[in-house]
Amino acid sequence: MNGKGEDEVFTMKWIQKGDSARLQLLDQSDLPASVSYVDLHNAKEVAESIRSMKVRGAPAIGCAAAYGMALECLLIAKEEPSVSGSTLKDKLQDTKKAMDEARPTAVNLMYATARIVEVVDTILNIREDASAALISECIVDEAQRIFNEDVENNKRLGSHGVATIDQDVAPMRASKAAKTEGATATNGPAERLNLIHHCNTGALATAGHGTALGVIFSLSQAGKNLHVYVDETRPRLQGAKLTCWELRESRIPHHLIVDGASGLLMYQGKVDAVVFGADRVAANGDVANKIGTFNLAMAAHAHGIPVYACVPTSTIDLTIPTGQDIVIEERSSDEILRVSGGASIAPDGTQVFNPAFDVTPARFLTGIITEEGTLKPPFGANLKEAKEKALQREKDNRQKSLLAIQQKLSAK
Amino acid sequence: MNGKGEDEVFTMKWIQKGDSARLQLLDQSDLPASVSYVDLHNAKEVAESIRSMKVRGAPAIGCAAAYGMALECLLIAKEEPSVSGSTLKDKLQDTKKAMDEARPTAVNLMYATARIVEVVDTILNIREDASAALISECIVDEAQRIFNEDVENNKRLGSHGVATIDQDVAPMRASKAAKTEGATATNGPAERLNLIHHCNTGALATAGHGTALGVIFSLSQAGKNLHVYVDETRPRLQGAKLTCWELRESRIPHHLIVDGASGLLMYQGKVDAVVFGADRVAANGDVANKIGTFNLAMAAHAHGIPVYACVPTSTIDLTIPTGQDIVIEERSSDEILRVSGGASIAPDGTQVFNPAFDVTPARFLTGIITEEGTLKPPFGANLKEAKEKALQREKDNRQKSLLAIQQKLSAK
Repeated sequence: MNGKGEDEVFTMKWIQKGDSARLQLLDQSDLPASVSYVDLHNAKEVAESIRSMKVRGAPAIGCAAAYGMALECLLIAKEEPSVSGSTLKDKLQDTKKAMDEARPTAVNLMYATARIVEVVDTILNIREDASAALISECIVDEAQRIFNEDVENNKRLGSHGVATIDQDVAPMRASKAAKTEGATATNGPAERLNLIHHCNTGALATAGHGTALGVIFSLSQAGKNLHVYVDETRPRLQGAKLTCWELRESRIPHHLIVDGASGLLMYQGKVDAVVFGADRVAANGDVANKIGTFNLAMAAHAHGIPVYACVPTSTIDLTIPTGQDIVIEERSSDEILRVSGGASIAPDGTQVFNPAFDVTPARFLTGIITEEGTLKPPFGANLKEAKEKALQREKDNRQKSLLAIQQKLSAK
Repeated sequence: MNGKGEDEVFTMKWIQKGDSARLQLLDQSDLPASVSYVDLHNAKEVAESIRSMKVRGAPAIGCAAAYGMALECLLIAKEEPSVSGSTLKDKLQDTKKAMDEARPTAVNLMYATARIVEVVDTILNIREDASAALISECIVDEAQRIFNEDVENNKRLGSHGVATIDQDVAPMRASKAAKTEGATATNGPAERLNLIHHCNTGALATAGHGTALGVIFSLSQAGKNLHVYVDETRPRLQGAKLTCWELRESRIPHHLIVDGASGLLMYQGKVDAVVFGADRVAANGDVANKIGTFNLAMAAHAHGIPVYACVPTSTIDLTIPTGQDIVIEERSSDEILRVSGGASIAPDGTQVFNPAFDVTPARFLTGIITEEGTLKPPFGANLKEAKEKALQREKDNRQKSLLAIQQKLSAK
């Protein structure tokens, strides 16, 4: 699954031989200067990796946490093979608590660890005397399912993205290509599909494949002739550091640009569509995402270029009426002032305003691409419908988990 | 004149005692890390300072070059007091040639050095046997006039800016303040005039006072309660490095922001107007300016916030029909990849697209503020009229130069 062979980077890999297991994690804190992997053997090491941002991105954190719980359960089963089910559950609840504290704002983290603890409940309801070894096996399976569901969701999102861009952008691009005399060195071939991407939304931020970058990977895998302009994404430069690295590893042609250059590119006719992810989608379709997203969307809107927010339905929060109700986190001045830890870019004592996110009002979006399909305006009703579909899928997944557990228990 | 006492920084200062003179220059290459001044004693040193960007900004370069010619003339007069007028002129023409080569694209440079050489022509036409000492005196006067005219132009531009903002922005702001319940820490007092400024357009880029930053200085000197959001202006960070420094020296409240944050600020109702300079204005009012300007203007336009390009009429080029005809300079990848000379922000081999300028189409501008007044749409006719007024003022200035030279000659 999404190993290097498939031309996509891998964020984490579960490696197990018998009762000895480890989670291999790409250490994102040193990217792109060095590419290194760490082996994690217990929940504490996983929590520490979450805390120190070796792993980042809400879905990726959730998967790592689930694997961390699985590692812990395997260790308990190894050290105390005859531990009672209820004691094991207590221990795992403590592990969950410590894990959740590693990043208290990450909803995916709590969701994943809760799902793992629930597995123990499910098992004990069916067979009170289940062995720690058997419980461990089921928990490892559940962590794998959490991981696989995320990758599958992203690939579904990617397919919807390909279909949407084929439908919305390709005809527009074809008509432009027909009008264009030839191609310049910077423009690339006229038949090339040029996208702008903001921040990092790829395999590194998820279990694999990614959201907006997942759409780009899916387009590439569908054989499209692609070129990506990568917003460097000030202040933390995730575009320059992570997205460029993922695109390079996947051999997708790209150029890095400063965030302020998107308007000129559009003015010069070099952009066919804009894609980005989102941290939160309000009930009316307003989306909160990394600072700079709104400026990019406004520029595209002024040029009649399609703009897509690419989000898993888990980021849609129907309890938030509009973007005005989303609280914008302000972060440290040093993120702006010190690039890669260097000397300050501004005079001593310069005051800084560093909001981490901005809000793109729904009217600037052409579509919201989710794993349940591409939503077009009016977003209100369509977001609700997508959320319901996702809840049904979630229920189906949990049913599949239950069946798998039942099968495993009856086989033993 | 624009010394430190007036709360504005000074870019250069002419210091003369008898026939011994020097040009004191603020070394901008080390700003904001250290504030140091260099003393230049001859044309070669001035040319070197232009080449190494100790002095930057077209008007400032022009003034420095004129002073450099004056230094050279004083040295010749000192070393060869009885040199003939025609030999002196030949020497100065060589000096001009060397000076012009220090920055071949700077029109203001060639203009200033040509004006200095013309002074010799004027004198020799009136009095063929004029002494080198007398010619030197006239040339020093002419350099001072070039400097003073630039400062005066900027102050006139600043006054027009104050009037325009009083007329366009103040009523809008007052109505907003009336509607606002109170003020938050980030917003500042509701009655505060909040501007966004892009790049550096201040005293450092001109002989003094500046263009867009000159408008801000004029608003401050007119007693307005001001607050400036300073775009850091990637990739070279002139906003962070130079504009923040000038505003700090002038004690004008400000916050540094990343270029992508302007949309959020506008969405949050924190911006009353946008001001920036321009490198070139086409005949239809399209303006070329530092990359990021267009995105800023589009964001303001989408929010109904006034947008002003603040330019000396010398940047208006009526021979360029539209912005599409302006060639955009692409600069080195390293400007983006290496911030303050540090390690690359992107993986090895990352391709970069680094256009230095963008074009803001005229329809995104509320006004073009010049030293001849604020132009409103339709820009075509109004730009032509402003250019004619400026030519007339230029003629008047040259006439004043001629009269001053004649008076000096007849007094000796």
